[in-house]
Amino acid sequence: MSGVSAEALVELAKRRGFFLQSAGAYGGVSGFYTFGPQGAAMKRNVEDTWRERFAIQEGHMEVDAPTVLPEPVFEASGHLDGFDDMLVECPECGQSHRADHIVEDDPDTGIEEAESLAPERVEEVIAEYELACPTCGTGLAGQAIEQFNLMFETTIGPGSSSPGYLRPETAQGIFIEFPQLAEYARNQLPFGVTQIGRAYRNEISPRKSLLRVREFTQAELELFVDPDADDVPDLSAVADVTAQFYSADAQAEADGEPVEMTVGEAFDEGVVADPWIAYYLGVAAEWYAAIGVDMDRFRFRQHRPGELAHYSEDCWDAEGEVSDPGEDPDWIELGGFAYRADYDLSKHDAHSDEDFTVFKQYDEPVSVETPTVDPAMGYLGPEFGGAAGNVAAALEALAEDEPDAFDGEDVTVDVDGESYTVPVEKTGFAIEEVTESGEHITPHVVEPSLGIDRALYTALDHAYREDEVDGEERTYLELPPEVAPTTVGVFPLMDKDGLGERAREIAAELRTAGFSVAYDDSGAIGRRYRRQDEIGTPYCVTVDYDTLEDASVTIRDRDSTDQTRVAVADLDSTIESLVDGETTFDEL
Amino acid sequence: MSGVSAEALVELAKRRGFFLQSAGAYGGVSGFYTFGPQGAAMKRNVEDTWRERFAIQEGHMEVDAPTVLPEPVFEASGHLDGFDDMLVECPECGQSHRADHIVEDDPDTGIEEAESLAPERVEEVIAEYELACPTCGTGLAGQAIEQFNLMFETTIGPGSSSPGYLRPETAQGIFIEFPQLAEYARNQLPFGVTQIGRAYRNEISPRKSLLRVREFTQAELELFVDPDADDVPDLSAVADVTAQFYSADAQAEADGEPVEMTVGEAFDEGVVADPWIAYYLGVAAEWYAAIGVDMDRFRFRQHRPGELAHYSEDCWDAEGEVSDPGEDPDWIELGGFAYRADYDLSKHDAHSDEDFTVFKQYDEPVSVETPTVDPAMGYLGPEFGGAAGNVAAALEALAEDEPDAFDGEDVTVDVDGESYTVPVEKTGFAIEEVTESGEHITPHVVEPSLGIDRALYTALDHAYREDEVDGEERTYLELPPEVAPTTVGVFPLMDKDGLGERAREIAAELRTAGFSVAYDDSGAIGRRYRRQDEIGTPYCVTVDYDTLEDASVTIRDRDSTDQTRVAVADLDSTIESLVDGETTFDEL
Repeated sequence: MSGVSAEALVELAKRRGFFLQSAGAYGGVSGFYTFGPQGAAMKRNVEDTWRERFAIQEGHMEVDAPTVLPEPVFEASGHLDGFDDMLVECPECGQSHRADHIVEDDPDTGIEEAESLAPERVEEVIAEYELACPTCGTGLAGQAIEQFNLMFETTIGPGSSSPGYLRPETAQGIFIEFPQLAEYARNQLPFGVTQIGRAYRNEISPRKSLLRVREFTQAELELFVDPDADDVPDLSAVADVTAQFYSADAQAEADGEPVEMTVGEAFDEGVVADPWIAYYLGVAAEWYAAIGVDMDRFRFRQHRPGELAHYSEDCWDAEGEVSDPGEDPDWIELGGFAYRADYDLSKHDAHSDEDFTVFKQYDEPVSVETPTVDPAMGYLGPEFGGAAGNVAAALEALAEDEPDAFDGEDVTVDVDGESYTVPVEKTGFAIEEVTESGEHITPHVVEPSLGIDRALYTALDHAYREDEVDGEERTYLELPPEVAPTTVGVFPLMDKDGLGERAREIAAELRTAGFSVAYDDSGAIGRRYRRQDEIGTPYCVTVDYDTLEDASVTIRDRDSTDQTRVAVADLDSTIESLVDGETTFDEL
Repeated sequence: MSGVSAEALVELAKRRGFFLQSAGAYGGVSGFYTFGPQGAAMKRNVEDTWRERFAIQEGHMEVDAPTVLPEPVFEASGHLDGFDDMLVECPECGQSHRADHIVEDDPDTGIEEAESLAPERVEEVIAEYELACPTCGTGLAGQAIEQFNLMFETTIGPGSSSPGYLRPETAQGIFIEFPQLAEYARNQLPFGVTQIGRAYRNEISPRKSLLRVREFTQAELELFVDPDADDVPDLSAVADVTAQFYSADAQAEADGEPVEMTVGEAFDEGVVADPWIAYYLGVAAEWYAAIGVDMDRFRFRQHRPGELAHYSEDCWDAEGEVSDPGEDPDWIELGGFAYRADYDLSKHDAHSDEDFTVFKQYDEPVSVETPTVDPAMGYLGPEFGGAAGNVAAALEALAEDEPDAFDGEDVTVDVDGESYTVPVEKTGFAIEEVTESGEHITPHVVEPSLGIDRALYTALDHAYREDEVDGEERTYLELPPEVAPTTVGVFPLMDKDGLGERAREIAAELRTAGFSVAYDDSGAIGRRYRRQDEIGTPYCVTVDYDTLEDASVTIRDRDSTDQTRVAVADLDSTIESLVDGETTFDEL
């Protein structure tokens, strides 16, 4: 495990413009971060690589929904009732804390995961172990535990009649538009819909920098599949991708450990049961590696039976190991890969006025035998008077449920506690052949859901390096060129004798070629290199007096600090082949 | 004026996946829209062109701040007190309405702009003209007008002690981080900071589709300039850009009309007074044209004196004419260009603990004559007893304000209403030479603030075309290739005999070359063309049996529907030169 402390990373992040706590001038606001110029650029790059891999390459649709949604959406989704954390308030200092964290943080309790305990049990544990307020030390025994909903609430329009909530996940903005999205997909399963955007959780006590924040960016894919179809993904595309798999079984064993294997092996050996989940674990592992996550500090961990949401058949988390993030374990959740079955669409189907199914055409129409009745009302009316209509309806229901009841001479139905017997010949009972061309099915959902901020933080953590160059300490970020905020730094040796003009021309040409370029003419060259090193710029180009003579420039490699000369005419293509990994710097 | 109705545009937008009202399954929610696959792609393209032009080309920094900010930010910015609309509630049906709109909507009142009237005056007008509830027709005379704050309020963390608000503009997220941003800019003015992101206004009664929504995307640039420096923008870069300018003076004249002129003329003739505003009007006019806004239906309109915020020295709106958007005038605000002076930074400086200035180094240090005192306390003490300290302080203040008072033998100061006379020789009065290397100044702000949703809507409106092709009616969007959701449609004539495979290969190659590609093999070719026409795809490529023989494909132009054959080997470069405008389709 390499060596950056969370403090050093946060200090660099603020000083160099990656991220800083928002509203520092007003004392800061917990759980809200502002991305500075470098962080915003890196975040866009991370999002763009996600979009390229999870949406464009897969042929999925990307949408962009509002962050505020009305209450009925979250009544249906279950967030209004179930999206809670356990809160305990200190009777002395008034500070609110997560009760489950207080239980977990005391090693005496022996409880590592308190989130799924009942609030009453947590109250008992707090009393039993005499747990105290982390802020002021006052004992919390006897304090009631409150279920605190994590959604930010607001009001839409004047008055208080229309509550709205900041979405706790981007997914609901996709689910609620399913009927229209299915139209765009011409009702053909499977199809996928992606969204990258803000999500919000009103954490009780956010901490740990970017790792537990109240506003963050998610990248989610909702893949709608036919549970009965055998259209499976092309697993061969990711079968050779290697990662560590930490199964629920291994976690249950005293000496269980994550096992390194390929995605193909994980699926073949039944470690990952669902082929779509296996496929997207492979896609995700490649993506995390591409944005700079160290695969030796990355794993997929399966949810244990107690962790799994009741509707979810299987769920794996992507986890990254980050350095010293405070009191919690080093392994943090980076994303989740859940088989959600028909939970989401069924809920919205039941709560709304629209149909959340797709019509699935059979390969060929099928004949279905359908029992029907056509009661002789001329008989039922005089016979049963005002009850005749209800008797007819009861006959119809009976025919559907128990056609065998019509096998005899008479058939008897109950209406409002009274029995009515009708001769079968007066019921018009028949078995009809009906041709059906298909059926309405509720698609199942496979959901890879990734956090952009945590991915960015982990990539920064894993990229942080310190070394010594020419006797001086140096800090640099070994970020992949795809996500580094800047690809090329361009410096004139000095801003005189035409060097500045030439350097600005070269910078403009590189920008036109599509590179992200930083131009810097201030201070000693060594300092300019250090600035770019600290923001992870992989290559720097220096324009000197030789450039004016022989049209060549110095190009410098961030990681090795090696330098070589390249013709200005070849600069674009040289940098492109370095970025694409077709050439190494040594080969230049 | 061309002919799409708002209804036809909204219908196309929903059917083809540009945008739709959110949560339709729950009856819809006013003022919230979801961008479907085409709209989300087009929105990204619009944002990317803005970023390229307003941030990257200008060398400005882009940041990404939270959408939720704590209350003190909006106390300082003035939004908490002043960001209100006038609300009147119907006593009969309970519906809330904007009182100023009700006044404007009745032609009898003769009032075209009621927003700046006092609420009492609006109450009077409603009573005088017997204005009624637009929903149920009940008279509103006598109903009190309430100031309704347009910010969405929420609560940060547990309890109610930390109100937060959804930002009404992205700008505050930049202003509050100014101290750190100035560091990133190495305290050198001018520097610019941009942000593209969500903003929120809790409109009383949103309507008009995407044009008045509660959640929208802004692209803002805050340019921090030294008001006393003469570093002005390079106006020559945009001096030849032509637009219609509708000055405050012209609006005040009975027959005043917008005047078409170049940005250079507008500045030289004093129509636009500030060079930075003139510069960004030029940049913006080019940008609006590039994303497909018809410059014949576009103008810059100066704020009239009554419209102008008290702190703002000048402000121009970009306006677009859109078809039939409902009851309001056809010209809608697309963006604003305001000279905000030091309003924003001064407010945050006064309300927060931080310094919102930059230290401006003088070209050379200057000597400043500073009057000082050094009172002989050995004299003052015995002479004035307990008042001695205050007398000394009063002498110091007097030296600073009126050094001439020390010209005589004695000097007299007042402390708590009593006069104390001190011999000047006991005051230690002297004029010191102090060398100052610079001073702290509060930068002024120039703010181009553009709405992305309205720009997108206007571009769609202006791109909408209907014509007849082969006797059939056709709808198409004449969108510029830079913003069209898809650049190339690729179709196999049929998905058999290897045509599908070849077409998929070509689609993949075009994607690798960086184009946005739609592959479609379903239905008749004519229908596939129509689908792409309706989403504005500029070029379609068809793979047919000849392709397998001679490695050429058909390429079709959206606007003319002309077709020609191109070698597959030249397809990338052909499409690139068409997109860049280097070749016209006729020249192929």
